[in-house]
Amino acid sequence: MNKKIGLSTGLRSLVQILRGRPQVPASLADNALLQVIFNRRSVRSFTRQDIPEDVFAAILEAGRLAPSTVNLQTWSFAVFNGDTWRQTFNRSIPFHANRAIIVIADTYRDRQVLDVFPYSPLVEHTVAVMNASLAAMNMNIAAEALGVASVMLSETGRTGLLDVRYLSEKLCLPKGAVPLMTMVFGYPRWAYPPMPPKLPTDQVFFYGQYVPPQRETMETWLAQMVAGYKAGHLRSSFEDQLKVYQNKIGQAEADLREMIFNRDHNEN
Amino acid sequence: MNKKIGLSTGLRSLVQILRGRPQVPASLADNALLQVIFNRRSVRSFTRQDIPEDVFAAILEAGRLAPSTVNLQTWSFAVFNGDTWRQTFNRSIPFHANRAIIVIADTYRDRQVLDVFPYSPLVEHTVAVMNASLAAMNMNIAAEALGVASVMLSETGRTGLLDVRYLSEKLCLPKGAVPLMTMVFGYPRWAYPPMPPKLPTDQVFFYGQYVPPQRETMETWLAQMVAGYKAGHLRSSFEDQLKVYQNKIGQAEADLREMIFNRDHNEN
Repeated sequence: MNKKIGLSTGLRSLVQILRGRPQVPASLADNALLQVIFNRRSVRSFTRQDIPEDVFAAILEAGRLAPSTVNLQTWSFAVFNGDTWRQTFNRSIPFHANRAIIVIADTYRDRQVLDVFPYSPLVEHTVAVMNASLAAMNMNIAAEALGVASVMLSETGRTGLLDVRYLSEKLCLPKGAVPLMTMVFGYPRWAYPPMPPKLPTDQVFFYGQYVPPQRETMETWLAQMVAGYKAGHLRSSFEDQLKVYQNKIGQAEADLREMIFNRDHNEN
Repeated sequence: MNKKIGLSTGLRSLVQILRGRPQVPASLADNALLQVIFNRRSVRSFTRQDIPEDVFAAILEAGRLAPSTVNLQTWSFAVFNGDTWRQTFNRSIPFHANRAIIVIADTYRDRQVLDVFPYSPLVEHTVAVMNASLAAMNMNIAAEALGVASVMLSETGRTGLLDVRYLSEKLCLPKGAVPLMTMVFGYPRWAYPPMPPKLPTDQVFFYGQYVPPQRETMETWLAQMVAGYKAGHLRSSFEDQLKVYQNKIGQAEADLREMIFNRDHNEN
């Protein structure tokens, strides 16, 4: 990673970020649901307003009804309000949000009645993560449809990506139930932030055979990531933040391997 | 798995399936966006009508703009129409759909400029699968918002879950790019099918500590899965279908492990 991104590159990058817009065909610009999908942002500042029970119930329902591989529904959701979060984690919900859901890739439940994955733990884990993430996105969009903002955090609990051991202990999860992310919900305090720097279409879509990444495009994107982070965190940097993750990632890897591969398959 | 589900259990299960409804609070029943989210179904029968370019472009854009861990956008999308699918796979898009997208968990691209995951392949894989799945769900909902139906297939290519080696060869994927699912899109030929049997809320949500699965609830659900499958596939059974997957799952596991763990981290 190139640490030296000068002031002019930084400013140019910020201008590029602020110019970022969803590329919505003009013919579809009036579609209300598309607007919700395209205007969605990760929001980290919330008002004190409570989310009404019926609204939160509808968000949860979007998780329950998400699609999944063979309809196996390999997910569980740990649901919190401010009080129950505090009882469990001894502090406020991140960003003082109103509600939280820890999304869990759960292969334990189905295994009580069905052995779809006779000793193939990596396939099973992959499928479960995929399905639980579909459910998470469905809840995110349902929230947006109801005016509720959210952010998905992969560093719940403490700093570090996928702090699976800590969360498993706190939630008393059985083996085969892997906490993936925490979604926190609330009403947004401010106007939505600018779109984070997205890779251009010719980097993420290909037609036929894989198109190798273009170094210049990727470096332009990285400069935007660095500049965008700096604009939002004057006392830190994107690189510093990555180091925080990297310092803990060895432990996360060990914990996750233990959880996925050292499960006795007959144990249930 | 209990193979013997009698006729009366089967019929009762079918009635239960047909009674399945999204549990939408009455106060929110008129929300048009929620209706789209809750009425979404996996659709496997399409008309011959082409999806217009602007509509398909908007669906793709929903993938590009999905949220991701640290905005790393660890995804690539292989995009097909009927002709290009046939050129690649020598047959029609599954279910004679109009368009297809193979969703790829891609950790190769970012690594060209950024080493977020110094040798922690399982964490990296998990994060990439999570993000690519968020993008998939965002595309699915965007399609629904535009009247386009779809289904996510984890058995693309040939039968078998996660046929990663075959698809990687066909798409010339580098190591670190794992094909996860194929989404196929088209206009629905019939009214949407009934909701597949979803687990009740008290099985998938918990408040505080994990609630172990209730065997009776899980067996009722399994009976519905068996009966529902039988009603849709007179010549096959849910159990037969699982056996098809299970016969190939050992190979899928071996291929996926090779792909995730035997990548030389300095290779890029």
